[in-house]
Amino acid sequence: MGIRTVEQYKESLRDGRRVYIRGEKVGDITAHPTLGMSVETVAQGFALSNSPDPEVRNLFTAPHPETGEPVNRYFITPRNSEDLVLRTKMIQRSIELTGGLPFGKDIGTDCLNAAFVVAGQMGKKQYQENALNFLEYVRKNDLAMCGAVTCVKGDRSKEPSQQKHPDYYLHIVDRNQDGIVVKGAKIHITSAPAANEIIVVPTRQMRESEADYAVSFAVPANTKGITFICRAGRGNWTPHEFHPDHPPRELTEAMIVFDNVFVPRDRVFMCGEWQFSMLLAYTFATFHRFTAISYKVPSVEVMAGCAVAMAEYNGLGKVGHIRDKLADIAGYVETLRALTNAAAKDPVMYGDIAVPNPLIANMAKLHFAGKYHEFVKLIQDICGGILATSPDRQDWENPDIHDYLEHYLGGSAKYSTEDRLKMIHAAQRMVCSHESAFHEVTTVHAEGSMAAQKMMILAEAPLKRYLVMAKGAAGIK
Amino acid sequence: MGIRTVEQYKESLRDGRRVYIRGEKVGDITAHPTLGMSVETVAQGFALSNSPDPEVRNLFTAPHPETGEPVNRYFITPRNSEDLVLRTKMIQRSIELTGGLPFGKDIGTDCLNAAFVVAGQMGKKQYQENALNFLEYVRKNDLAMCGAVTCVKGDRSKEPSQQKHPDYYLHIVDRNQDGIVVKGAKIHITSAPAANEIIVVPTRQMRESEADYAVSFAVPANTKGITFICRAGRGNWTPHEFHPDHPPRELTEAMIVFDNVFVPRDRVFMCGEWQFSMLLAYTFATFHRFTAISYKVPSVEVMAGCAVAMAEYNGLGKVGHIRDKLADIAGYVETLRALTNAAAKDPVMYGDIAVPNPLIANMAKLHFAGKYHEFVKLIQDICGGILATSPDRQDWENPDIHDYLEHYLGGSAKYSTEDRLKMIHAAQRMVCSHESAFHEVTTVHAEGSMAAQKMMILAEAPLKRYLVMAKGAAGIK
Amino acid sequence: MGIRTVEQYKESLRDGRRVYIRGEKVGDITAHPTLGMSVETVAQGFALSNSPDPEVRNLFTAPHPETGEPVNRYFITPRNSEDLVLRTKMIQRSIELTGGLPFGKDIGTDCLNAAFVVAGQMGKKQYQENALNFLEYVRKNDLAMCGAVTCVKGDRSKEPSQQKHPDYYLHIVDRNQDGIVVKGAKIHITSAPAANEIIVVPTRQMRESEADYAVSFAVPANTKGITFICRAGRGNWTPHEFHPDHPPRELTEAMIVFDNVFVPRDRVFMCGEWQFSMLLAYTFATFHRFTAISYKVPSVEVMAGCAVAMAEYNGLGKVGHIRDKLADIAGYVETLRALTNAAAKDPVMYGDIAVPNPLIANMAKLHFAGKYHEFVKLIQDICGGILATSPDRQDWENPDIHDYLEHYLGGSAKYSTEDRLKMIHAAQRMVCSHESAFHEVTTVHAEGSMAAQKMMILAEAPLKRYLVMAKGAAGIK
Amino acid sequence: MGIRTVEQYKESLRDGRRVYIRGEKVGDITAHPTLGMSVETVAQGFALSNSPDPEVRNLFTAPHPETGEPVNRYFITPRNSEDLVLRTKMIQRSIELTGGLPFGKDIGTDCLNAAFVVAGQMGKKQYQENALNFLEYVRKNDLAMCGAVTCVKGDRSKEPSQQKHPDYYLHIVDRNQDGIVVKGAKIHITSAPAANEIIVVPTRQMRESEADYAVSFAVPANTKGITFICRAGRGNWTPHEFHPDHPPRELTEAMIVFDNVFVPRDRVFMCGEWQFSMLLAYTFATFHRFTAISYKVPSVEVMAGCAVAMAEYNGLGKVGHIRDKLADIAGYVETLRALTNAAAKDPVMYGDIAVPNPLIANMAKLHFAGKYHEFVKLIQDICGGILATSPDRQDWENPDIHDYLEHYLGGSAKYSTEDRLKMIHAAQRMVCSHESAFHEVTTVHAEGSMAAQKMMILAEAPLKRYLVMAKGAAGIK
Repeated sequence: MGIRTVEQYKESLRDGRRVYIRGEKVGDITAHPTLGMSVETVAQGFALSNSPDPEVRNLFTAPHPETGEPVNRYFITPRNSEDLVLRTKMIQRSIELTGGLPFGKDIGTDCLNAAFVVAGQMGKKQYQENALNFLEYVRKNDLAMCGAVTCVKGDRSKEPSQQKHPDYYLHIVDRNQDGIVVKGAKIHITSAPAANEIIVVPTRQMRESEADYAVSFAVPANTKGITFICRAGRGNWTPHEFHPDHPPRELTEAMIVFDNVFVPRDRVFMCGEWQFSMLLAYTFATFHRFTAISYKVPSVEVMAGCAVAMAEYNGLGKVGHIRDKLADIAGYVETLRALTNAAAKDPVMYGDIAVPNPLIANMAKLHFAGKYHEFVKLIQDICGGILATSPDRQDWENPDIHDYLEHYLGGSAKYSTEDRLKMIHAAQRMVCSHESAFHEVTTVHAEGSMAAQKMMILAEAPLKRYLVMAKGAAGIK
Repeated sequence: MGIRTVEQYKESLRDGRRVYIRGEKVGDITAHPTLGMSVETVAQGFALSNSPDPEVRNLFTAPHPETGEPVNRYFITPRNSEDLVLRTKMIQRSIELTGGLPFGKDIGTDCLNAAFVVAGQMGKKQYQENALNFLEYVRKNDLAMCGAVTCVKGDRSKEPSQQKHPDYYLHIVDRNQDGIVVKGAKIHITSAPAANEIIVVPTRQMRESEADYAVSFAVPANTKGITFICRAGRGNWTPHEFHPDHPPRELTEAMIVFDNVFVPRDRVFMCGEWQFSMLLAYTFATFHRFTAISYKVPSVEVMAGCAVAMAEYNGLGKVGHIRDKLADIAGYVETLRALTNAAAKDPVMYGDIAVPNPLIANMAKLHFAGKYHEFVKLIQDICGGILATSPDRQDWENPDIHDYLEHYLGGSAKYSTEDRLKMIHAAQRMVCSHESAFHEVTTVHAEGSMAAQKMMILAEAPLKRYLVMAKGAAGIK
Repeated sequence: MGIRTVEQYKESLRDGRRVYIRGEKVGDITAHPTLGMSVETVAQGFALSNSPDPEVRNLFTAPHPETGEPVNRYFITPRNSEDLVLRTKMIQRSIELTGGLPFGKDIGTDCLNAAFVVAGQMGKKQYQENALNFLEYVRKNDLAMCGAVTCVKGDRSKEPSQQKHPDYYLHIVDRNQDGIVVKGAKIHITSAPAANEIIVVPTRQMRESEADYAVSFAVPANTKGITFICRAGRGNWTPHEFHPDHPPRELTEAMIVFDNVFVPRDRVFMCGEWQFSMLLAYTFATFHRFTAISYKVPSVEVMAGCAVAMAEYNGLGKVGHIRDKLADIAGYVETLRALTNAAAKDPVMYGDIAVPNPLIANMAKLHFAGKYHEFVKLIQDICGGILATSPDRQDWENPDIHDYLEHYLGGSAKYSTEDRLKMIHAAQRMVCSHESAFHEVTTVHAEGSMAAQKMMILAEAPLKRYLVMAKGAAGIK
Repeated sequence: MGIRTVEQYKESLRDGRRVYIRGEKVGDITAHPTLGMSVETVAQGFALSNSPDPEVRNLFTAPHPETGEPVNRYFITPRNSEDLVLRTKMIQRSIELTGGLPFGKDIGTDCLNAAFVVAGQMGKKQYQENALNFLEYVRKNDLAMCGAVTCVKGDRSKEPSQQKHPDYYLHIVDRNQDGIVVKGAKIHITSAPAANEIIVVPTRQMRESEADYAVSFAVPANTKGITFICRAGRGNWTPHEFHPDHPPRELTEAMIVFDNVFVPRDRVFMCGEWQFSMLLAYTFATFHRFTAISYKVPSVEVMAGCAVAMAEYNGLGKVGHIRDKLADIAGYVETLRALTNAAAKDPVMYGDIAVPNPLIANMAKLHFAGKYHEFVKLIQDICGGILATSPDRQDWENPDIHDYLEHYLGGSAKYSTEDRLKMIHAAQRMVCSHESAFHEVTTVHAEGSMAAQKMMILAEAPLKRYLVMAKGAAGIK
């Protein structure tokens, strides 16, 4: 098969998976008002690899390295900086082209690439083969995947084995010749209900006594014992909004409960090798932060655009302190872009796999997470209080008050009141809505907290080199 | 009368006022799902002045300075720091006691106090009498007021008289012996639809050629020609939320359109005296920022409490970087409290009226506005990603998945999963919801932008004194 | 005696004390080029209490609470907010009036006030009497004191008893009926060589096993076994500088070595009561941070003045981004002033002693320390690169090149080139000199590091109150 | 010749140039205590191109593009990203290898490269030839150059032609067939007294009426009418310092006065083409900021090393808040390195000349300037108060007190007290000395102020692209 159509993808989700949202069990997720939108968002990724535009198609697909048949480019394991440059470009373009984050393969391949690195370092043939076979399987069937990493964690100050119960971290509860049985729950799993396959990776380093928690594997989404409990999303456009012509884009995060789930041997990538749990968690984090900094570039560009537009519409484009703020806004966006490109162009090789530069990727992630709220503040500041109190589309359409709004809500005479209101509504979605608050939180927490990035920066920075230079300057032998 | 009951207040709002929300005209605003909640929030202020608890009643009422009859304490024009200390205490307590901002008199008296200062400086008897008579009228009838200050402004880089049309700033369009006729629209007017009286103040300094824009007056909310167009609020609790037992508190902002509204002479406080427009705008801003810093103290305390609680519930209370963040959170709150008290204790006298210290009030406002987003980030950081993806109350109540949630969403063993979920939902309302995003914007824009505060800090700070000291140090005569 | 003259003070320093600076032993410190300047700076404090201006004299002296005789006001143990308001005023005025920090009694009384609080809490009569007698002694003889608090500490990650040797923290090495013998070294001790008496306080909390380290006492500066090793200061004005007419002001820090120093019983304020070591360190810190925030107000005012002046001299007074920076500069200074006053006006009573509000004092200290470098940056930014590369006074006075400098180094035509150069030199001293770098370091480290202030903010802030409020909002019983 | 020796270079400076420092005229600058050190620092650049190590020699020299003869690599006009990567590497290595900034050709070629770009854009053959001939001349004679850009500016709010006198900006006062005569003064000119040639470039955009100010040219340092007035530097090591074995490295900035200096026609690169003054100033700024971000990388690395070392020596290497600060320190350094490399790897082509990416170069410059003070604060915080009060080398060598210092100033038992003191002294030079304060100022002002960088970021960032994306999201056609 190699490249599936949107319809084939959707059909594959009607597989009996057990999904709950807002307290209700969902039959066909593709038909659910919220989950359907999430499916549609992921489906755009399939549309891109079937694009009639050859430039697009050639970006989103690539020849299978051995057979030469077209496969989705996410399934190309990066071997050099060129592969990483194409990967970041693909992620950035997917958002520009679809208006959403069609995350059907990004995070899954972040996991899988990390699994390859670790299997290589462990030197265990079986795991290497399992990973390779799994890759061939998803390539051939063009599957959507999610990456299940974060455990629910219980008391954050306690190790997995010291908790009230042993299940706060996902672990092996049984093993036999055919496979293993696992129990636990993974949380915050992006686009999980819209995936075909779930890839599990440990959430952190495990110790010797926690070997049962050092486990990685892949299972289909409709495997027995698996339940998805989803966050409620925004749902469709309402008649109160000015909005563009296409449906809103959104992904749905879920908590995935593994209630004694059986995993066959050949789907296992780690099974007790606690010494490598750290490397797996760490390498996944690097790949995943690289994905994150990639998708954030267009996300923050469009936000920056709202500020540029509103400054213009409000007649403030030439005002000194507004220009100063626009420079800060542009600096935030472009520093992110420059670092993202730099992480791709300066990879670290693990065997024959090119890992995005971990130091730069972590600095880029910390840049966007640490300064995002300030960026949002600048946009809110430029847009004005109207973000908070704007009338809605049905006010506009009510003839009783339409003329008042038309008359009084104009800005610079160069633009129509209606365009100004449309831009206000776009800006609202981005910096004054439930979604915008949600994104503040995910900016801080998705792909690891800022504390995690600082830890990795400290681990990767050349402190020894600094020290040697300082000793030289001090005259210390 | 002096002190009205909640019922008397509500009854007074059924007066034929013209109110629109979400595109629809509202008959009885007290019965509307959103506006009714807003009315209920303001009504709490009336409940406080009728409190059976004498300590509360004595804080929220005061003897009329001449007759000795009880009136609402907001109607006491401040004469000394003690009055201001009681005013800030009253505002802070009102929020603690009701869970909301019962803003029926705060902003109106901010306007009125400023009008008194300016009438005094102008030396115009008539305005002084008008203001005094109006004060007696609202005292006697215990009226709720809103302060209508911000004009819609059109192109922000242009003066009122250079705009596409003359109405972007409210102005006098006709005058006769009996009064004046005004046209324009005021925007972002807090709790406007729940007010009995609207007090209008110029939004900025006006020049000589803009004398028609230098206008201040008060009119009843049901005056002919007035239309309220309201922002949509959150509405009532939903079955998806964990929440406390009382209804949600909320105020409703409105745009107020003045479509050739007649104002009788004795309701006018400024009418063309453009030279004093600056003083009026400036003095109002000082009083109003003092109100703002007062109500923000308990607002941010409860937010800080969510961080303290979630650190505890997540088992992170002793972790170094979490404690560091809690210290930053506490420092933000307590610096605000200290500056707010200092502004009350160190007033500036204009004639016999005590104005809260303008320098300190502006620094306090800039403190909370400038650092609010960082404060929110710290809370989001401590609370964790669960803020964004938490299951809802109906998930919890669905027996199919309840046990999973109970089992997996526990934190520190000292607390129940249900309490942790309740706290997560409270934290969501405060830092991960449409309301929280709305508050980010109002924090930046309500009571003037940060640029406005910087301007006033520069105007009020003793730059000359600094200069003299520096010249001394430089040896310059 | 009560009030000594400058000469009496200077004479008292010729007492055989053992002082080293720049590798050399100093005979008469009053005659040493650097130390003499330091003595002169401290001596200004004596000049103030002998001032012919009654307003000054009445600020710097006060009637002895029992005898009514005039004593230095530093020797008034604060009983209420009024005393603290006068204390901060006195400190601030001393700098304005003398151009330096005449620290002869500030820190010593910070120690002594803390000793009173702790003696009260311990309930040990003997210590209370000792402290009281010592106070009467210094009152009567009008002595200059230094406060010796910070131990050298060795390996900062180890407790006093785990170090390579036991002397990294000052401790008792012998005790007998007459007194105790102590060993150790105190470091960074401000104006130590210019003091008559040294008061020692523990540098931190001590544990039960470290009881010998829980020691507090006072000894004369010329006590046998005491050596001062001083930092080199800037010395006098050079011919290369433009400068004012008075000598430069400066204090000299010293390391004080206690080489088996005998302390008589009646000079001891703590001797093994490790349980109270924390309270003593903590209360001293509060008093001392209050002193710090007081002296910083005029220090940063004069720095701010250089920015105001240079903006003017460079013709930039009306430029938007410069005004924005001046607003930030003023906000920094005035927030410090407001918090300092607030700490005085809202004290905490320990028995009958008024301790400056610890929460506010720590926030104020953290404010000035945490934002000082940014403040310096703003001043450097406004002043311009000429700070770094300015010609010196002897260039100016060389007729070969004088006219070039006169012609080319003018700024705004309103000011002479010479005045501009004088201001540049003043600004250099404040933000581009060895002294300015020194002050950056002391701003961070003097009166405790920022980490120490955060710890105290966390300890003093009403976290419980926040928590209760959050639980109310969450509906948790 | 092509590559000169250190001695040839020094000899060439004894050419009768007119140099003043500290009010005195200097005969032979190579023999002057301060200027000689500056010459020695620049001379290291000549040593590098004569290095016996072929790797070094091959980095610092390159074959002449036409003749193939070795020339200094600075004289290679960049044609592609590879050339820029080598240029930044060369700058960085020069500092690592010599401990100083051997700035004999960096800034001069920044000017010359900009002159090439502008000559190309103007399409004036004569200027292109002049620039090329000059390049061949400096290549052949291996000359040291300085770039004279910043005018003294007078009243910063006034245009060149509105000033008190016309000379605040350098300008043409006469022209004839042979050449032009110029008057004015350039200030802050790095390593000017140690240069053979001075290249002049306009300090800013000029208008039509200011055509005489649009002038660029090169003249030898001993040209009649030129006077250098130098800043005083630190001079040699003193016996009070612990220091490494080599002499201190330092450059000397000078004000260069042009007192009716004649410039022959063939040395002129711009003469009245005010329309291109902006491009010249702007292109120079880009090249020069690229030089700046390059030399800052090793400069801040060694500073970071002091923090790493002192954390270790103080026993604080594992403490949470110290590690957090070290992560911030490393993040500052490595973000700078990553952006610097990115600016080299992603150049903008002007004709056949590769200009470092202007957007990234400006962001990198703003990064290091805007956050430098915070970086310094972190280092000061980690190093401790001992930075301010450390005893000096002669204290250490005085046997009276040596043992005290040895005993009491140890830190972690793993290191000797002497090494700790050496490191303290190195850290002092970097963050607590006149030099460190000087570097704060140059960080802010050298290579243009932060306001200048913001302006260029705004000019270079793709604001239009953001706007189009936002309009798409808003549904605006």
